[in-house]
Amino acid sequence: MPACLVQGASRGIGLEFCMYLLRGVPNITVIATCRNPGGATDLRALQAKNPSNLHIIPLDVIDESSIKQAANEVKQHNGGGVDLLINCAGILHPSGRGETSLRDVSSQGLLTTFSTNAIGPLLVGKYFSPLLQKGTGAFGQHAQNKQTHAAVMANISAKVGSITDNGLGGWYSYRMSKCALNMATKNLSIELGRGRNKVICVSLHPGTVDTELSRPYHKNVPSEKLFSTERSVQYLMDIINGLTMQHTGKFYTWDGKEMLF
Amino acid sequence: MPACLVQGASRGIGLEFCMYLLRGVPNITVIATCRNPGGATDLRALQAKNPSNLHIIPLDVIDESSIKQAANEVKQHNGGGVDLLINCAGILHPSGRGETSLRDVSSQGLLTTFSTNAIGPLLVGKYFSPLLQKGTGAFGQHAQNKQTHAAVMANISAKVGSITDNGLGGWYSYRMSKCALNMATKNLSIELGRGRNKVICVSLHPGTVDTELSRPYHKNVPSEKLFSTERSVQYLMDIINGLTMQHTGKFYTWDGKEMLF
Repeated sequence: MPACLVQGASRGIGLEFCMYLLRGVPNITVIATCRNPGGATDLRALQAKNPSNLHIIPLDVIDESSIKQAANEVKQHNGGGVDLLINCAGILHPSGRGETSLRDVSSQGLLTTFSTNAIGPLLVGKYFSPLLQKGTGAFGQHAQNKQTHAAVMANISAKVGSITDNGLGGWYSYRMSKCALNMATKNLSIELGRGRNKVICVSLHPGTVDTELSRPYHKNVPSEKLFSTERSVQYLMDIINGLTMQHTGKFYTWDGKEMLF
Repeated sequence: MPACLVQGASRGIGLEFCMYLLRGVPNITVIATCRNPGGATDLRALQAKNPSNLHIIPLDVIDESSIKQAANEVKQHNGGGVDLLINCAGILHPSGRGETSLRDVSSQGLLTTFSTNAIGPLLVGKYFSPLLQKGTGAFGQHAQNKQTHAAVMANISAKVGSITDNGLGGWYSYRMSKCALNMATKNLSIELGRGRNKVICVSLHPGTVDTELSRPYHKNVPSEKLFSTERSVQYLMDIINGLTMQHTGKFYTWDGKEMLF
């Protein structure tokens, strides 16, 4: 019975991953984490429809002790391993608007964004990697009759986190945090690529998705480039389902193309 | 009379830049900043020998108000612009040792390292950019008889901040912070590359330099690859002296080679 953990599952892409997995993968156990399960109405409605397959536990990515506690809870309840971990939680900036110029840049904005977008997913990797190493390899592709990896860890990054691709500037906090997240993914891929129970670690760009994070910026996005969460998650799951250890440490856009860092 | 600001000038590469500039550039004004001028014995000794060319002012990169105050002080005293700004302050990790594995990764270590290595230089850019835009273009190269840029901003980064080049992993905090710094450099290059008074912004890898930061790791460095601060600063000044607007936003190693991000 495959087990997945979706971090940041109360809405947007995270919530959609839960729906997709519950719908598409037989006998799956989905562990959905979010800051405040009590306020996660949509996630709780999904849980009511999938009472034995979906478990909601609290996890606040900016609080290391909460991540540790969540990992202990999953270990005790679930016993076994986790086959797929998706880090979804992310903010553009605490103000909800990315910086358009240096005038908007502040220490506090940078710290909060970095904590949520880069430190959080890395600490989730720290505390959940022992569970990933006990995964059964249910996601991704294996060479014939051979389990080549135990689990997959996918960090939802963003194209604007590519330094090479940065032609417009701005969004200092978001860009710097996503770039640091990509470095965390690479480091995790190296550390968790050693030993017998390997974990494939990738950064994924979901496209421009119709979520609260990006909504203030949709005006200039052509409609064919603005994805619903369903469409984005379908693309990302297609990538995840095709992953092998050859892909670990890399950064892919929704269409499977590799991004330069 | 060219003016330079060296941020993080109490020791190591920063102190060496001050010495180099005072020795090599006629009539230069060097503004040296450090957290605690009272304790900066070597810098104060240098000041005693160069009383009219070297000014020491306090600036703590992890304190935004201190950066703002330092910029105001330079504006009042110096009046005019700054031709070269070098961001040198950096830490490997608050413990003095980079993380060798996820076990060593902590929220506090990541936050402190990110604050010093990435947020600090960016905020220095924020508050000093109006001064850089008043620079006379004394550093770098200009097309014939034409001032193509007002100033140069050089951020001391590190090769291990390249995601593409990362083959060993570890040093989570340092790698993530330097990678984020490289993104800040790129963003600064775009914002400060607009308008009439352009500022060239680059990230520089100084090589493995014999400083307190790297000293615990010298055992396995072949002696020809371990640079004195003099040697490293000579290389970096050679790069800075050759810069044009074509180089802005990029990341160079001590030998002038461009690094992938």
